[in-house]
Amino acid sequence: MPIPGQLNPSPRLLLGPGPSDVHPRVLTAMATPLLGHLDPQFLAMMNETQEMLREVLVTRNSLTLPISATGMAGMEACMVNLLEPGDKIVVCVAGFFGTRQVEIAGRAGAATTRLDVPWGTVFDLNQIRETLTKVRPKVLSIVHAETSTGAWQPIDQLGKLCHEFDTLLLVDAVTSLGCVPVKLDEWGIDAVYSCTQKGLGCPPGLSPLSFSPHAVEAINKRKTKVQSWYLDMTMVQHYWDADRFYHHTAPITMIYAIREGLRLVLEEGLEARWARHLKHHRALKAGLNAMGLEYSAAEGHQLPQLNAVKIPAGVDDLTVRKKLLNDFGIEIGGGLGDFKGQVWRIGLMGHNSRAGCVFQVLAALEQCLMSAGCKVTPGAGVAAANQAYAAA
Amino acid sequence: MPIPGQLNPSPRLLLGPGPSDVHPRVLTAMATPLLGHLDPQFLAMMNETQEMLREVLVTRNSLTLPISATGMAGMEACMVNLLEPGDKIVVCVAGFFGTRQVEIAGRAGAATTRLDVPWGTVFDLNQIRETLTKVRPKVLSIVHAETSTGAWQPIDQLGKLCHEFDTLLLVDAVTSLGCVPVKLDEWGIDAVYSCTQKGLGCPPGLSPLSFSPHAVEAINKRKTKVQSWYLDMTMVQHYWDADRFYHHTAPITMIYAIREGLRLVLEEGLEARWARHLKHHRALKAGLNAMGLEYSAAEGHQLPQLNAVKIPAGVDDLTVRKKLLNDFGIEIGGGLGDFKGQVWRIGLMGHNSRAGCVFQVLAALEQCLMSAGCKVTPGAGVAAANQAYAAA
Repeated sequence: MPIPGQLNPSPRLLLGPGPSDVHPRVLTAMATPLLGHLDPQFLAMMNETQEMLREVLVTRNSLTLPISATGMAGMEACMVNLLEPGDKIVVCVAGFFGTRQVEIAGRAGAATTRLDVPWGTVFDLNQIRETLTKVRPKVLSIVHAETSTGAWQPIDQLGKLCHEFDTLLLVDAVTSLGCVPVKLDEWGIDAVYSCTQKGLGCPPGLSPLSFSPHAVEAINKRKTKVQSWYLDMTMVQHYWDADRFYHHTAPITMIYAIREGLRLVLEEGLEARWARHLKHHRALKAGLNAMGLEYSAAEGHQLPQLNAVKIPAGVDDLTVRKKLLNDFGIEIGGGLGDFKGQVWRIGLMGHNSRAGCVFQVLAALEQCLMSAGCKVTPGAGVAAANQAYAAA
Repeated sequence: MPIPGQLNPSPRLLLGPGPSDVHPRVLTAMATPLLGHLDPQFLAMMNETQEMLREVLVTRNSLTLPISATGMAGMEACMVNLLEPGDKIVVCVAGFFGTRQVEIAGRAGAATTRLDVPWGTVFDLNQIRETLTKVRPKVLSIVHAETSTGAWQPIDQLGKLCHEFDTLLLVDAVTSLGCVPVKLDEWGIDAVYSCTQKGLGCPPGLSPLSFSPHAVEAINKRKTKVQSWYLDMTMVQHYWDADRFYHHTAPITMIYAIREGLRLVLEEGLEARWARHLKHHRALKAGLNAMGLEYSAAEGHQLPQLNAVKIPAGVDDLTVRKKLLNDFGIEIGGGLGDFKGQVWRIGLMGHNSRAGCVFQVLAALEQCLMSAGCKVTPGAGVAAANQAYAAA
């Protein structure tokens, strides 16, 4: 094989379910020469990263750090650390990532009870209370922002409920962190995992984790070793704390990236960031609705950062997405699992939650829908978005 | 906490056991905006990366790819995919990373037989044959370049020996790949894991893996699921092959990095790269010897890319390494495990295997040794290195 040519990707606007576009300041940070993974300057950056991560997760949890792998490894890390073989877990399934939790809990040897609601809807507390009463599990896990459906699960009262049953609350915040409120301590979340490539505006590669003192106690009381050595928090934490016990070589450049991403979040301020995501969501939604597109998640439970809309009857999913990508350089997501071919998922996450992205995707989608034979009033999408902006 | 300041690390020369300095072209590649992880252009890059990785590993193994975590996750991935609970493994332990293999094999539920030689020495085939005859394990694992001792384990005949016993040969090539020959097919290696931050001149964050057809067969014949979902090669491979089955979001920027790192390796050529590592090793060794420093690994088994030397009697390890770092910006490694406080580890890996690095570390070390009260003939180190270069 001849040696492949110089890296030269086409310009893209990443408006799918993630990765989202990386903030230019983060890209610049990633071109910075390395420090050693035990260099005092790097250790200071690790501390800063943890401290910023705590602020962004609104927690004082000591065990808060990004593990050296992507969000799905974060899911596994939480499961294999909290669960020992035979431990009971209730997994709330409202979409694709709920089913992933079931699969991974099973591999951790847990006795899994699965609680389902139709995709696109969310759980109510009474339903969960009933199951907790019956099962009394060690852990209840739930997805905060279900990436496959665009549904926003309310979880602010869930920790209190779980703790009535001495149950640890495990939350998937992969698509919520940095976009909508995630308040660990106030909401009583015991364990959380997220990612870097969505609300934090960094490339994929790390998974921020945080464990409450209660969760840490459960981990420390384990009778068996964590089955994954790489994800064993009893060891990883001693690399991140004052012990600096060598475990593995931290992905230096990715730590540079998340550090810069977190600085950007805190410079903007959490409240302002959440408000920004809402504002651009409302404009996008007004535009999509004006073009005849309906959301797949129930009204009142639609994620601002991930807009899942039903593909109009007779329109071919792939044709539209290919045209968006090839003619306009815009990536949006298709459906996953049950929603394959049924929905498009349009992300406005982190750096990409801005008017320029809203305008581009509405205008380009208008042309694609017209090409597909849909009746769309020309300019209706952008006009509705601008009305929403004016009303904001 | 006030928001931490802009990323501004001090200039460093990373001459420890890794991470090593990243090639400037790789740093530039990492500042490139993202493609989506299912973008056709990105999928093409994944194919190119696999193809280049096969060339660098001198193999035709179809299942050859970098997993989305660091080298230690690569060790775990090999163990948990090849081993099912109760399977027999022989682990050859000649240093710190051999003990890691024992630990991780245990967590995979394997029946582990440990074969030891003193740190700094290597195994001979007869010793291994004896154990294979007795144990008849499913897997034999060994470290090619033991990072803790600087010893270079000959493995070119080991695959043939293992196959006599129907045993799969698993090799840790973390510190060897990109520095010294690693020839999978010719040597009959069934599974290998490596890293990006040493011989490939990239940041840490990925672990290249490769499995022989025989190893793939063993994985496909498993009766139990791989305990780690994230590292389950039966799934990961279908994201990398033509199925493009979504498993997790690939760390795009790190793939950009390894792609560029591999391009650099192939542009230079494998033979030329191995010769370069030998050349600069010989110069460094001449210099270190001229300054009275002795290697900890046996003569004839010293790694060119990782020069472990005994700390002279009466010299304080940390004082010297701190002075090197603070006064000269040079990082070298201390000892690990049994060798803590006993050795220094000087890496000349990938991009850092060059005369400028040899000269800097010899000159700076001379000053540090003199400060520590050692008798060193001024200029002897650099002079000896230059003689070695002249003789090359």
